[in-house]
Amino acid sequence: MYAVPNIPLIKAGDDIAQIIYKCAKEDKFGFENRDIVVVTHKIVSKAENACVKLSEITPSVYAKELAEKTGRDPRLCQVYVNESKEILGINGRHIVTRHRLGFVGTGAGVDTSNMGILDEEIVCLLPRDPDASARKIRSKLKELSGKELAVIICDTYGNEYRKHSINFAVGIAGIHPYPIGDTVDLYDRPKKSSTAQVDEIAAAAGMMMGQANERIPVVVVRGVEYKVGKDVSIKDILT
Amino acid sequence: MYAVPNIPLIKAGDDIAQIIYKCAKEDKFGFENRDIVVVTHKIVSKAENACVKLSEITPSVYAKELAEKTGRDPRLCQVYVNESKEILGINGRHIVTRHRLGFVGTGAGVDTSNMGILDEEIVCLLPRDPDASARKIRSKLKELSGKELAVIICDTYGNEYRKHSINFAVGIAGIHPYPIGDTVDLYDRPKKSSTAQVDEIAAAAGMMMGQANERIPVVVVRGVEYKVGKDVSIKDILT
Repeated sequence: MYAVPNIPLIKAGDDIAQIIYKCAKEDKFGFENRDIVVVTHKIVSKAENACVKLSEITPSVYAKELAEKTGRDPRLCQVYVNESKEILGINGRHIVTRHRLGFVGTGAGVDTSNMGILDEEIVCLLPRDPDASARKIRSKLKELSGKELAVIICDTYGNEYRKHSINFAVGIAGIHPYPIGDTVDLYDRPKKSSTAQVDEIAAAAGMMMGQANERIPVVVVRGVEYKVGKDVSIKDILT
Repeated sequence: MYAVPNIPLIKAGDDIAQIIYKCAKEDKFGFENRDIVVVTHKIVSKAENACVKLSEITPSVYAKELAEKTGRDPRLCQVYVNESKEILGINGRHIVTRHRLGFVGTGAGVDTSNMGILDEEIVCLLPRDPDASARKIRSKLKELSGKELAVIICDTYGNEYRKHSINFAVGIAGIHPYPIGDTVDLYDRPKKSSTAQVDEIAAAAGMMMGQANERIPVVVVRGVEYKVGKDVSIKDILT
């Protein structure tokens, strides 16, 4: 695994693929075919301006209720509601949501950290269509490097039964979400279940990315066998 | 990350640490201080004989009901009940359980694959005390290698909201389950949440281990910053 160094703070309109390619090149890193580029959703959302100013949000009665129960800003609770298909419940100060894209977790993929010191409080959402964002980065990186890569966009999610969070895939391009085809165990007995490979890769990259001030938003994973996929979607992994 | 090669099929009574050390040494791999040795619970359970013969299990009425609803062997359902504090629900053919150690997942950590071709059907349980198993492996590896290592014992768990499973930590030694101390974001604002580091490391190792016939039960992770912990327990991570 290779952490791309010196990625600058991303602004709306930035070309993520161009920046990744440039930073890797300046570090003498050469992409290879079948590399998997894992990108935190945060920089993708910033580049795509998938952000909301809390000052422009008017909380509903329901959002105010959620705020009261959890001690959170009612405007932030309204953003959770806006970003979700469904509010599944409350767990202490956490609001468990089913995001409009189907992901279940706390806080509807809305981030308040690493958003810069600004006059107004700005929160970061998931990209509108993370699969499309991944495809765009993949296509541009292929153009720049001449290599066939896969791209995973990731975010950290909490788990109801375990403290703290781990990284999951929220958008994919060029890689199937899990191994395709039948697998067998050591004794040639069919295995019905298989691993969610893109989630394991996202978690592995998360191990290097950290979640606070590490400033490593892009990790390249090399040497992992995977099934190349065209027209794949992270939605294929959701129940 | 380094996959220890040529680990033989493990039998009851085998010394896992000795085998890991020997296989790594024959491959010219030298352990270093702060290496994290990730071991799949399967070989630990086999070495500790944490296995059950289905022929010796008499299913209760409740286990028979579970079997009927899920299409599973009633004796296997009884093992799930025996290994669980609580049966949380049914999801298609999956039975969601709270394991006696507190882990929530499908099938109570009971594995039926890679258990050998035997006259009798044998299933593999989680080790009785995976933290203790991790401590034992750590202590023996330290004795053999002279290095300060951490050990994580892992298992794959399904997630209710995502298809397929990923690797989680079920026992730890020498490593805190998550970063200790306050973290700040890029703008020095405190971050309240942090990543479940041992779970991300387990998932990363799972990326190399696979789950079918890959035969990679041990992966060494190097270069990850972590907080060394004495008397740590995976239970500290459970809600």
